Amino acid sequence: MGRRVSLYSLAMKRGSTAWAEQVIARCRMLAHLSEDTGGTRRTFLSPPMRDVHRELAGWLELLGVSATVDAAGNLRGLYPGADPQAPRLLLGSHLDTVPNAGAYDGVLGVVLAVALLESLEGRRLRFAIEVLGFSDEEGVRFGVPFIGSRALVGRIDEELLKRKDERGISVRDAIRHFGLNPGEIAAAALKGDVLGYLEFHIEQGPVLENLGRPLGVVEAIAGQTRMEFIFTGRANHAGTTPMHLRRDALAAAAEWVVAVEREGRSIPGLVATVGALEAKPGASNVIAMEARATLDVRHASDDVRGRIGENLARQAEEIAARRGLSVERHTLMDQRAVAMDGFLMEQIEEAIRAAGCEPHRMVSGAGHDAMILAEKVPAGMIFLRTPGGISHNPAESVEAGDVAKALECGLHLLEQLAASPVLKRRMSRA
Amino acid sequence: MGRRVSLYSLAMKRGSTAWAEQVIARCRMLAHLSEDTGGTRRTFLSPPMRDVHRELAGWLELLGVSATVDAAGNLRGLYPGADPQAPRLLLGSHLDTVPNAGAYDGVLGVVLAVALLESLEGRRLRFAIEVLGFSDEEGVRFGVPFIGSRALVGRIDEELLKRKDERGISVRDAIRHFGLNPGEIAAAALKGDVLGYLEFHIEQGPVLENLGRPLGVVEAIAGQTRMEFIFTGRANHAGTTPMHLRRDALAAAAEWVVAVEREGRSIPGLVATVGALEAKPGASNVIAMEARATLDVRHASDDVRGRIGENLARQAEEIAARRGLSVERHTLMDQRAVAMDGFLMEQIEEAIRAAGCEPHRMVSGAGHDAMILAEKVPAGMIFLRTPGGISHNPAESVEAGDVAKALECGLHLLEQLAASPVLKRRMSRA
Repeated sequence: MGRRVSLYSLAMKRGSTAWAEQVIARCRMLAHLSEDTGGTRRTFLSPPMRDVHRELAGWLELLGVSATVDAAGNLRGLYPGADPQAPRLLLGSHLDTVPNAGAYDGVLGVVLAVALLESLEGRRLRFAIEVLGFSDEEGVRFGVPFIGSRALVGRIDEELLKRKDERGISVRDAIRHFGLNPGEIAAAALKGDVLGYLEFHIEQGPVLENLGRPLGVVEAIAGQTRMEFIFTGRANHAGTTPMHLRRDALAAAAEWVVAVEREGRSIPGLVATVGALEAKPGASNVIAMEARATLDVRHASDDVRGRIGENLARQAEEIAARRGLSVERHTLMDQRAVAMDGFLMEQIEEAIRAAGCEPHRMVSGAGHDAMILAEKVPAGMIFLRTPGGISHNPAESVEAGDVAKALECGLHLLEQLAASPVLKRRMSRA
Repeated sequence: MGRRVSLYSLAMKRGSTAWAEQVIARCRMLAHLSEDTGGTRRTFLSPPMRDVHRELAGWLELLGVSATVDAAGNLRGLYPGADPQAPRLLLGSHLDTVPNAGAYDGVLGVVLAVALLESLEGRRLRFAIEVLGFSDEEGVRFGVPFIGSRALVGRIDEELLKRKDERGISVRDAIRHFGLNPGEIAAAALKGDVLGYLEFHIEQGPVLENLGRPLGVVEAIAGQTRMEFIFTGRANHAGTTPMHLRRDALAAAAEWVVAVEREGRSIPGLVATVGALEAKPGASNVIAMEARATLDVRHASDDVRGRIGENLARQAEEIAARRGLSVERHTLMDQRAVAMDGFLMEQIEEAIRAAGCEPHRMVSGAGHDAMILAEKVPAGMIFLRTPGGISHNPAESVEAGDVAKALECGLHLLEQLAASPVLKRRMSRA
């Protein structure tokens, strides 16, 4: 108990609300590091990612932690344990954002990890802590998410490296342009010395707010399908081509978008979204020759998700056939629902209670790096209440009181894990 | 009759099919002067427009015609009449294209004008002929069409000069960047010495092909409405936001696109098109906050067109209101149906017959520079049959035999006009 009290008292000395406010201020400051002037957009290995690395590395440097960037663009900093050979606990989240993003999605988990290390004030625990800031979770630049965490589980393949962004730059070239060596990606993979992965993240939904609880423990991450549909029709003049002679790719895609929304509403807990739709050539006086639409389907049941994905693909084909068009489908992601580690869930619940809150077990509708890490190591996630359920939006926010509770919970969690006989057994195997 | 025979025989000497093939070869060569490597895109004052000017100026130079570019970016070359003070007949079309364009839309009319001057082999007519290559008819770069011909009728206003392209460059700056002086636009306007405007253009529709006729005479250009609709909802996470709590701007826009198509099919002769639709932020895992859609409505009756435009705006508002979104509407163009000049129509019909074809009077569903010029001067248009009705598409084509007929028709038309007592009266007033 001695160690737990001492860590907790250190945090209290700093004043946990002031500490929480510093965490928030850092997140807001990092939000200014953006590809866009009018809002936050920070995609995989874009120039502002280098600025974020520099800021985080500076904070880690003050703790004597020398940060490095691995070949997949992940920021990594190892805070050693009492024993230099101690196995490591991973703590982090992602540093990339969607376009027009908020200040907390992803970044908050990394800034909280740094703050937790700061709270240790140089004290060594029974395990090392590796802070992780993943290079890509959102998948905005290349249309494929989790490039960062996939590198840690050895799932970066040639197909992914060849994939190109809108400007025709491949993942491989993006890595090179950032000054990294794509040939070293294999070395980014986790070794056998990892005890587990913990991630703090905003909920990005309305559940905790509706329950009036600051923190939640994730029991599973919903399965997720991402597809791209390309409708191909025939370009023609909008003024001279009678309606019945058209093969309008945009009208076909629009009919399908309406069907996707209808399908999404048909089953409780299902979400189905078309977030991007691009018409080519995209001129007001030209009937569209091509329309590309994304599809995102999620549900806690892999069966339901699979059935809906096929259903929507069949509807796209029916719409295209009826209109004399063709349609192609590309599956960019087919991620099964993933359970979090049972032991870590229990420990998180205990830590949330120790911070004076009532935990809530919940399914995450959003995909997270923890879902990828869970393929190789025990993974656990703590959700922070999200005001209005609003995220992927500049209005995204967190309450300072909830961040303070997350910090307290994190400290308790480190204490518990350091003292836990279960982790001790895992350490001896690591 | 002496003059008519001599001009006609000149053309025959050159062999009208070989001559037509040269016209086609020139159009195909100019199609390579493009902003894109994979296809033809040549928008208002884009770099390849300079190359097109250079080629055309070179051909005109060989005729002793020194071409200039006016402050609105129009290429202009005056072939003098027998009397240096003779009034002028305008002959031309536009040099800009849609994205992924064909080789004939617009350009063919300018290349035919040059070819008709070449056929004169230095002979002077009773009137001067000014060849015009308009800088913008399609309206792709700034979303507002006819920048070129509007300058000739004095309709370039401050609002248009301030309008910006996707990269934030204004019309005024685009003119400056091309090395022109926006302060001199007023000087581009037509003076009182213009007898009329004649334009050869591909039909871009199926009418002449269905009738089996190479050439048509345009009696009116259908009225045209262009609007932009901006649906504004709320960005949110696609995985965590239940369907019933969404304000999805893209789903709303898609529902409206389906309504536009339904409306377009409801009345004979009506066309209603959404050619461009852009969702923001446009990421697959983010519910769209904004969707911008263009609308293009055309009909020979201004009443029908106005009613349908209002109807579609009301439907956009109903869809937005039902979904808790807002929608803005901007009218970019509201062009009334325009009749062509009766005398020129008769002369064109006579010239088509003289070329051995049966003329067909028709309404143009496409807008044309002739519609703008008709505000100030008598205007006439000759349509060339368009295989498959395909245009605004790399598959756009013309038959060499039809181009040969257009050249014959053009020569007869110049002859007729030079001999016509009506034009003589107009000349004395000019």
